[in-house]
This record gives sequence, structure tokens and C-alpha cells, in this order.
Amino acid sequence: MSDYPSIVLEQAVNQMASLPGVGRRTALRLVLHLLRQPEAEVEAFAGAFARLKKDVVYCRECHNISDTELCPICASARRDHGTICVVENVQDVMSIENTGQFTGVYHVLGGIISPMEGIGPKDIEIDSLIERVAKGNVDEVILALPTTMEGDTTNFYIYRRIQNADQCADRIQTGELRISQIARGVAVGNQLEYTDEITLGRSIVNRTEFQA
Amino acid sequence: MSDYPSIVLEQAVNQMASLPGVGRRTALRLVLHLLRQPEAEVEAFAGAFARLKKDVVYCRECHNISDTELCPICASARRDHGTICVVENVQDVMSIENTGQFTGVYHVLGGIISPMEGIGPKDIEIDSLIERVAKGNVDEVILALPTTMEGDTTNFYIYRRIQNADQCADRIQTGELRISQIARGVAVGNQLEYTDEITLGRSIVNRTEFQA
Repeated sequence: MSDYPSIVLEQAVNQMASLPGVGRRTALRLVLHLLRQPEAEVEAFAGAFARLKKDVVYCRECHNISDTELCPICASARRDHGTICVVENVQDVMSIENTGQFTGVYHVLGGIISPMEGIGPKDIEIDSLIERVAKGNVDEVILALPTTMEGDTTNFYIYRRIQNADQCADRIQTGELRISQIARGVAVGNQLEYTDEITLGRSIVNRTEFQA
Repeated sequence: MSDYPSIVLEQAVNQMASLPGVGRRTALRLVLHLLRQPEAEVEAFAGAFARLKKDVVYCRECHNISDTELCPICASARRDHGTICVVENVQDVMSIENTGQFTGVYHVLGGIISPMEGIGPKDIEIDSLIERVAKGNVDEVILALPTTMEGDTTNFYIYRRIQNADQCADRIQTGELRISQIARGVAVGNQLEYTDEITLGRSIVNRTEFQA
């Protein structure tokens, strides 16, 4: 006999414990909490995750998570579409939005270059970024990646790719296209989502020229 | 616009954050982890909770969580059905089973009497316990409730109810029916100086024969 008095219970605990940072004891506590809720609420709980993977789409422009083909930020006429802020993931978009300091649009890479984890430039949304920039109506690319070695590597790679893209070198030369990076107010080694809003906000305002 | 780029995402985060001890930031991290998993795994995750409330039943005898009308412990011929261990909840059954020291059966109250939280004797499985004991083929009732004021209150209430039940007073008198409670004292492996005064005081007053 298994440790659990019920297979259905055990399966729910197994699923809960499959989440990162959730141990089996915590998982059991959470599942038993759910069991005490009314059936409608447990259905709503299950339903939210059943829909999650099916209904979530990625914005065709910035690759942020979205409910629509074009995310609300990319679809907004009040945003500055000439300024693209390049971030690693969805949490970073939310963090920067929370600072209220940025009026441009985003480009979500969905990861950063990491040879250790086997993530190369082709595994993340770099080609589509270069395409967006090469279209010619972008004034500034803000590199807002983590201030880690992987982030720096990705920054440098993107910078080179933009330089090599159609007419971009000329536009950088004439100052029509700027490539900046967030100010190093963000402590080196930290993830954006854990940075306090004031530091993060300033690092956007005080962004500096990208130095290759 | 909400903080979240997607309503589907937000709903999943809301559901995850409805779990006790899970904050919104953690909830977002967990949901984004799920989003990175293959669709089949996310479906399995949602499915486990969809089934949870529908398929879980409570043992008609001991009220433990079960997949069947009679739980594996109550259905087992190798368990001593004359010894009933009264516990607060499912976790306590699992904890006692893990000790491997108990061969009897259980009775899960589903809570303890707590005037502060508005839980009275009618809200938990006390009537069904008295019924089981009054049937006459029970030798011992072990009260294994928390050693708190609520636990003590519930212990005392159950003791009185058993005394007042059909023929139980006689059977207690003749020693046919025993009512015991789990031993209270200094936890094994603990230093006396770090044990709370009440526990230490009681462990002196309620000292037991030294067994060499």
C-alpha cells in the first residue's frame, strides 16, 4: 500500500509536488486545502490550468504572453513604437511596467544565450528582433537583460547582429539608431524580477550607450 | 490594463495564489513554469485537480480519504479492528502509519472542537465514533488529538460521550473497554533545557516506571 490513502489524492499531490520549490509535505497540505473547498472552486482551480496552455498565445510582435495575436502594449497607440526594450522573459516586462518609467514597447527573448544550459541564439527570439530593428522605424534598442555573464554575452551578440543587419551600421553611425543598456544600478548577478522598483526604474531612465 | 499581459495567465496566477502560503510572485513563477511544460503535462496537472474533488470519497467506517467506500485500512483483515485511534485529520493517519507502530484502525474526526473557530461537536465525526464504539466489539479507543487546549477539550468531550453511550460505562468499569491517550512528555532526542515548562512539568508529574 502506498503512503497515501487514495490514489486520486496521491496523483494530485504528485502534480502539486512537481512544481519547483514545492515539497511533498507542502503539496499534501495544499491538496487537502483544495479538498476542503467547494466543488465549484476546485473546478475553477483545475479549469484555470486546463485553459492556460491552450489559450495563452504569444504576441506576434514582441513575443510576450498575450490573449490576442497582438499584445495590449504592441497594440497601444500611446506607446512609443520606436523604442524597443529587450528583456529575457515575461516577468521582466511586468517588472518594468510596474516602474511606470517606460513608454516604449518590448521584445521578449524567452531566454538568454547560455552555453552551459545549451541555449544558443537560435533558441531565443533574436532573429525576430533583428528583423524588427532592420525595418528601419526603430530609434533605440534598450538592452534590459540580467547583469550576468549570460546577459552580457547576449547583449554583445545582439549588438553585433544589429550592426551587421541591413543599413543598421549606417543608422548607428548617424545616430538615427541608438543601442543602449540599462544602467548598472541593478546589482550585478541579480535577476530583474527581484530588483526593487526604484532601482529598476532608475536603471531605465539612466540607460547608457552600449559599449562593445 | 491589469498587471498581467494575459487574462488566462492572470486567472491561473489568481488560482495558484489562492493556495495558503503562496504569494502572487511565487504563483506567477509556478504558472510560468507550467507554461514551459509540454501541453500533455499541463493537462495532467489540471486533470489531477479536476478529478480530486469528484473522485475522492471518505471511508464510511473511519472517514479517512479513500478511493473506495471502505478504505484499505478498514478493509484489511490484518488490522486490529478492536483498537480505534481517533485523530484530527488525514495527515495524522499518514504520520502514525509512517511510524509502523500501530496495527489498529482509525477514526478521522475531520477537525477538533474549537469554539474560537466555531467548530462544535456536530461539525466533526463524533456521533459516528460513538456509534462505532457502542457496537460493542471495540476494546480500546486511543485519543491521538493535538496536545492543545482544543485537543484536550475534544478528548474530554469524547470521553464523556462514550461513558454515556449504551452499556459503555459498564464495559469501561469491567475493563473490557479502555480509553487511552497518546503519551505526552519530552520529545525523544530533545534537551531538557529547551523543552517548554508545561511539557517538562507534566513529564515529571506523569513519570512512568523505568524500563531497563
